[in-house]
Amino acid sequence: MTKWVYSFGDGKAEGGSKDKNLLGGKGANLAEMSNLGIPVPAGFTISTEVCTYYYENKETYPSDLKDQVTAAMAGVEKIMSAKFGATDGPLLLVSVRSGARASMPGMMDTVLNLGLNDVTVQNLVKLTGNERFAYDSYRRFIQMYSDVVLGVGKHEFEILIDHYKEKVNKVYDVDMTADDWKALIEQYKAEVQKETGKQFPQDPQEQLYGAIGAVFGSWMNKRAITYRKLNSIPDHWGTAVNVQAMVFGNMGDDSATGVCFSRNPSTGENLFYGEYLVNAQGEDVVAGIRTPQPLSLAEKTAIGSDLPAMEETLPSLYHELVSFRDRLETHYHDMQDMEFTIQKGKLWMLQTRNGKRTAAAALRIAVEMCEEGVIDKAEAVKRVDPAQLDQLLHPMIDPKATKDPLGKGLPASPGAASGQIVFSAEDAEAWAKAGKKVILTRIETSPEDIGGMHVAQGILTTRGGMTSHAAVVARGMGTPCVAGAGELRIDYAAKTITAGNRVLKEGDVITIDGSNGQVLNGEVPKIQPELTGDFGKLMGWVDEIRKLRVRANAETPLDASTARNFGCEGIGLCRTEHMFFDPQRIIHVREMIVATTLEERRAALEKLLPYQRDDFIKLFTIMAGLPVTIRLLDPPLHEFLPHTDADFAEVANAAGKTVADVKAKASQLHEANPMLGHRGCRLGITYPEIYEMQCRAIFQAVADVKMKGETVLPEVMIPLVAVKSEFDRLKKMVDAVAAETMEKTGAKFEYMVGTMIELPRAALIADKIAEGAQFFSFGTNDLTQTTFGLSRDDAGPFLVQYQELGVIPNDPFASLDQEGVGELMKIASERGRKTRPDIKLGICGEHGGDPASVHFCHLIGLNYVSCSPYRVPIARLAAAHAALGVGMVSTTA
Amino acid sequence: MTKWVYSFGDGKAEGGSKDKNLLGGKGANLAEMSNLGIPVPAGFTISTEVCTYYYENKETYPSDLKDQVTAAMAGVEKIMSAKFGATDGPLLLVSVRSGARASMPGMMDTVLNLGLNDVTVQNLVKLTGNERFAYDSYRRFIQMYSDVVLGVGKHEFEILIDHYKEKVNKVYDVDMTADDWKALIEQYKAEVQKETGKQFPQDPQEQLYGAIGAVFGSWMNKRAITYRKLNSIPDHWGTAVNVQAMVFGNMGDDSATGVCFSRNPSTGENLFYGEYLVNAQGEDVVAGIRTPQPLSLAEKTAIGSDLPAMEETLPSLYHELVSFRDRLETHYHDMQDMEFTIQKGKLWMLQTRNGKRTAAAALRIAVEMCEEGVIDKAEAVKRVDPAQLDQLLHPMIDPKATKDPLGKGLPASPGAASGQIVFSAEDAEAWAKAGKKVILTRIETSPEDIGGMHVAQGILTTRGGMTSHAAVVARGMGTPCVAGAGELRIDYAAKTITAGNRVLKEGDVITIDGSNGQVLNGEVPKIQPELTGDFGKLMGWVDEIRKLRVRANAETPLDASTARNFGCEGIGLCRTEHMFFDPQRIIHVREMIVATTLEERRAALEKLLPYQRDDFIKLFTIMAGLPVTIRLLDPPLHEFLPHTDADFAEVANAAGKTVADVKAKASQLHEANPMLGHRGCRLGITYPEIYEMQCRAIFQAVADVKMKGETVLPEVMIPLVAVKSEFDRLKKMVDAVAAETMEKTGAKFEYMVGTMIELPRAALIADKIAEGAQFFSFGTNDLTQTTFGLSRDDAGPFLVQYQELGVIPNDPFASLDQEGVGELMKIASERGRKTRPDIKLGICGEHGGDPASVHFCHLIGLNYVSCSPYRVPIARLAAAHAALGVGMVSTTA
Repeated sequence: MTKWVYSFGDGKAEGGSKDKNLLGGKGANLAEMSNLGIPVPAGFTISTEVCTYYYENKETYPSDLKDQVTAAMAGVEKIMSAKFGATDGPLLLVSVRSGARASMPGMMDTVLNLGLNDVTVQNLVKLTGNERFAYDSYRRFIQMYSDVVLGVGKHEFEILIDHYKEKVNKVYDVDMTADDWKALIEQYKAEVQKETGKQFPQDPQEQLYGAIGAVFGSWMNKRAITYRKLNSIPDHWGTAVNVQAMVFGNMGDDSATGVCFSRNPSTGENLFYGEYLVNAQGEDVVAGIRTPQPLSLAEKTAIGSDLPAMEETLPSLYHELVSFRDRLETHYHDMQDMEFTIQKGKLWMLQTRNGKRTAAAALRIAVEMCEEGVIDKAEAVKRVDPAQLDQLLHPMIDPKATKDPLGKGLPASPGAASGQIVFSAEDAEAWAKAGKKVILTRIETSPEDIGGMHVAQGILTTRGGMTSHAAVVARGMGTPCVAGAGELRIDYAAKTITAGNRVLKEGDVITIDGSNGQVLNGEVPKIQPELTGDFGKLMGWVDEIRKLRVRANAETPLDASTARNFGCEGIGLCRTEHMFFDPQRIIHVREMIVATTLEERRAALEKLLPYQRDDFIKLFTIMAGLPVTIRLLDPPLHEFLPHTDADFAEVANAAGKTVADVKAKASQLHEANPMLGHRGCRLGITYPEIYEMQCRAIFQAVADVKMKGETVLPEVMIPLVAVKSEFDRLKKMVDAVAAETMEKTGAKFEYMVGTMIELPRAALIADKIAEGAQFFSFGTNDLTQTTFGLSRDDAGPFLVQYQELGVIPNDPFASLDQEGVGELMKIASERGRKTRPDIKLGICGEHGGDPASVHFCHLIGLNYVSCSPYRVPIARLAAAHAALGVGMVSTTA
Repeated sequence: MTKWVYSFGDGKAEGGSKDKNLLGGKGANLAEMSNLGIPVPAGFTISTEVCTYYYENKETYPSDLKDQVTAAMAGVEKIMSAKFGATDGPLLLVSVRSGARASMPGMMDTVLNLGLNDVTVQNLVKLTGNERFAYDSYRRFIQMYSDVVLGVGKHEFEILIDHYKEKVNKVYDVDMTADDWKALIEQYKAEVQKETGKQFPQDPQEQLYGAIGAVFGSWMNKRAITYRKLNSIPDHWGTAVNVQAMVFGNMGDDSATGVCFSRNPSTGENLFYGEYLVNAQGEDVVAGIRTPQPLSLAEKTAIGSDLPAMEETLPSLYHELVSFRDRLETHYHDMQDMEFTIQKGKLWMLQTRNGKRTAAAALRIAVEMCEEGVIDKAEAVKRVDPAQLDQLLHPMIDPKATKDPLGKGLPASPGAASGQIVFSAEDAEAWAKAGKKVILTRIETSPEDIGGMHVAQGILTTRGGMTSHAAVVARGMGTPCVAGAGELRIDYAAKTITAGNRVLKEGDVITIDGSNGQVLNGEVPKIQPELTGDFGKLMGWVDEIRKLRVRANAETPLDASTARNFGCEGIGLCRTEHMFFDPQRIIHVREMIVATTLEERRAALEKLLPYQRDDFIKLFTIMAGLPVTIRLLDPPLHEFLPHTDADFAEVANAAGKTVADVKAKASQLHEANPMLGHRGCRLGITYPEIYEMQCRAIFQAVADVKMKGETVLPEVMIPLVAVKSEFDRLKKMVDAVAAETMEKTGAKFEYMVGTMIELPRAALIADKIAEGAQFFSFGTNDLTQTTFGLSRDDAGPFLVQYQELGVIPNDPFASLDQEGVGELMKIASERGRKTRPDIKLGICGEHGGDPASVHFCHLIGLNYVSCSPYRVPIARLAAAHAALGVGMVSTTA
């Protein structure tokens, strides 16, 4: 005989938390509490195997299920000293809930008070002496049951209540009397009769099986199927059904209900924390009509409450609750979020689960529990969610502040910032020089805006996605950014932002919250992050655990220092072109571009060389002893050309050309698809003098810093390689410049030459490229664009729709597409290692800071990830999680 | 003892044409002729193994080589009854030539008259009684030897001759006397002494080994290495050295020299054809100072020559030559290109090789030889080069016409055309309606120009590459096109083209040659192609042999009929968007795009439906019984939007919007990288009503044509699929519309639903997509763009440089990149077939008409290729070549 039904209650249970697959999460948890001797209302769980049986057998139940349910119900009746369906004497009412392995939206949730009918409700009146309570319970049951089991009345019942209230001139449910509910119950039943053609079921057994059937039925409803598909939950897992005795906290002043946390979920402080209400039901605590009371005296003092604490009013029950709290936290080794009900002086625990907490609390609880010896270091590391960690690294809006929202965009770069609105990078720089704090507000940003972006407190754009220029650069700089706030309209000419019918002018103060995308009016108070000792301790443990190294994407000294402070182990991507936009330099870059002869081009490059060399000297000095990967020029040349007539004139003047010449050059360089254009190593092949200048600057800087006694580990990276000969040709050039520099300076130094793998073709021929390349760095931004055929600048509008429709689970620019892009990374890693077993493999796309992507990189055996400086701690933690085998998100079905 | 040296001559030889690897092409051929009993001047070949030995042993020779050379030279002396280095009595002079397996530019070519020195030259005077001849031969030898063996004098000797002629007041070489040459020889020798520090070698043995060493040395020179790399020739193949007795056609009136073809190389007619000169050397025939005489009387009549034919003057030698011609053609089973010399009444054959021929000749020779029983059908098919076949399908410029070139562009679509210049599509249509022939002349074309392109005789653009819009569309229509003629400057405002200092106005007549890219002034006479009976015969044999099916890319009735006439087996790609550009329709397309509600969009689509349905009815009727693959809308919507203010106004008016609305929509739809933008199935997902309309039009047409009793085999193709759910979602829609149409019309029909594989991601997850897709069509244009990260619209300038620098061997948009794109095709084919063994696989990119690419498609087992109508015969022939295992071009090293 197969066992289909598992009982719990009275200090014991069939099964426990290890039986999640069989009992579902909720059932396993209830059994576990019962086993611990914690008083939980008795009940039983119909296992997930019944669900599987149900669907494998044309939606029928095993023949022996009914007997087992009957027996289990008898057990519950015995423990609870009450009878299911009793018309006289103690009455057992039950709740029926679904319970899959993981909680799942779309599944039937809960039916309460099951067992009530026209007769038992009268027994309940007798037993409680509270007619209003009994009939209110009954009508709630009819309402819930009709909705979730019979699929009728949801909307109609609301209308019936509204009409009724109107008729009797009442507003709130609390105003309703027993007679009011009685009258409504008759209307409900009539509605059910009308809709279903049948009477509302009066037989408690029929009610019970109706509810059980509804749970199993909901496993295959559309929302549940979609959810499972998106979350890779197999259909055959099935759901369990939990049937449990009801207890009531509203049976008089010796009854109560409450919620509590074993530690403070906001701060993490090891202090018992919660609230309760006398003579109330769970939903009353939530509804907020009555003010809940504190549990402990300490808490009462802390929050300055003048209501009596449970410790004062119900001291023995309070101490019993504290003992349960201790037992549960010790048992689960984690902060618990618990619900309890006191029914006529008896304390019942209804639920315990690991409590949600803020990032700060998560950190403190993990570290303290480790120090208390409750958990080990690995477990402490597991307890902090890398995605959440980001909150700790940036200022946050004070949760208690009042907010005046203007609109919402994408949370493009975390942290909150306030400042005066300016509409151009030039204004941002001018105002900042004058000591003002500004928010740079643009429709979108371009590389020319870099100066203004650097001095702004925050950046707001009305167009563009999570990987727009503004977003990428802002994250790199750690500057808060809200991108693509489409409801706001910017008028550059009038220098205004329009939000609905409000118009803000240049100089008005706004606050942006880059952690959630909010744009708020005025200055809003913020909380500054404190990287306390706990942070340092945890990150120390993280570093002991992880296998992946973590580098930073950085090119400015500020970024590099920030990254090193955040514990990076080198630079994985220094984008040399970012060094070209400085106003002193851009003119020479433009001269170089409009040059018509090699000599002119060389002359312009010669002027750039000292700037680049000084940049590299600074970087190498900051990163002394750590590897620094420098990518040679990547973007197409037209990205550096000006847009205004004044700028055209300036370039023409500097280069000794006419404005028409310069404009003709700009038009000649224009590209239909610049992403797929004349860029990367294609520039290095067709204008070798550009890469030569860059290499000369790099190696001169290496020689300089090395001669000062520092260790320099330069890695020269060739971008956008598609065919082997591109790489071979350019490596030869790099080697030649290195040899020449060693000879000229007399310095001896080591260096590596490698390539980005950012085109599908490069991934496919990685074995051949590895013959010359000493390292690969996966440029997953471009690799995603080419593998998907998807421009990150343009994909915003339809990617959002794609996610809404469930066509794709996530934005592939935010979290690595493991099925497609990941497959190419695997191919490239395998092929590259086949040729060169010690090849160094890393990733330097935006994905390097995304925990799920970091996990994937760990799994395919990369040596390092590289991400923006502010994401370094997140990547370190994610790498540790990966090494511990937690937190993997798969995008494949 | 290893045999290093192989002799030939006197009707026998060591080795023959099967020994190409050992003897090189030239050596094997000479041996073969000798074996056939054809009189060739005796000689010997130093095998390629010596070359390999030479490089494996620090550039030294095998110890026993010298003995073998000496023995072989003794053999030659015996056969030729002359002595190498003889100062008295018969003198043997030799030529030394390189000879690799395949002829290879960059290798040392030839040293003639080797063995002459200050003493032997006097013997030569005695022997020939011709002092001028002897000294001229000596100075030629010094000049050649110094250049190719000693590496000196090339330029200096020319200067010496010029100065000398100036001094003695002579202009031509023929004016120079024996004394003049003697004087110059002294100057040459002095120059050699000055440059090399050594005397010019007088010892014939030293000369011989110097020349042999130069041949082996040239195997590793830079040009040869580069050539081998580009043509995938391994270094270890090595070259052979051929040493052969000299014979002279300029030893009096009983000496002569000539060249001949066994059949007419222009027409293919089976008529012996050639020319000769009495008392002359080979180079005199080429130099054109004397008019060569015809060989046969028939030829003399045919060309209307009044010079005596060899058949008249030297009848017995003529008949001997004819007998050699017969023997060689029969032996080689192919038309031969031969060289001969008559020295003092003795006929020597110096060379025979398969002759180059025009496409028309190739076709005729192949068919006639097959009918003569010389070769079989398979061999006949092999003899016609698919690439050459293209010439036969289009008008050609008469080779005899005088030409006045204006400039040159890319040969974008073959054929020649003349017409009056017009500068806009509208003008083209207006002028054509007025009965004029026009050449549409644009900087570049866009989809809006399609009407004008259709009526033009030819298309000329000054920007864009082989896969620019103009080029692709022109090839599809079979209209001649020259693209990217960058030297020409178009001024739309003035309506002129400037070519150098010439200015052509609207209405001036030009001729373009799309087969070679030439732009010519005025009307130039053309030859019309005749698809003679030979063409039909050969194509019949082709179809018996090939395995791959050949379809056409076509959407207009004209294209479809053309393709069917050219023997296509269905349509592999009908680009529905091309049907949208008709002036009657484009307005509705634009209405649809600017619609702000679903209802407006549906209303506009409703107006388009009848047009699309009628298009499909026509296509299905023309293609009755053959499959027709219809691709749903692919380009981004903004491609359909207007550019002029008038057009904006018209759209606004038709759609009931303001011009500002329409412009705002255009700006909203603008994309930074449209190639990677909101297009293909992304449109189908986000605007399902568009694809629904198209499917409705398709299936209504299917029902219509089917009810008329025709067989219709529609295949609906979803473009740009990247993730499985895109395909699944849209297949469901297609199926629903099909079912609905069957129900409404009462027709029952079959159809298939499949997808383009045009993104790397789709190739990688082909196994998953194949769960729903019944066919794949490789869209190799886009697959090349994404795999390479290369925009075909932008790549022109640097791809040309890449090819020049040898970074890539060919334009990957013209010939499939087998290493990268081909790898993805292999992956997708394997994975697709794993899931669905009978999945139909095809290719519909531009590569479908490229012979090397067709070969690759055959090798990976595709079912069909699809190409533009005019390339259908080429693809058929290429497919037959592939089935016969010839003509494979590999792009991998």
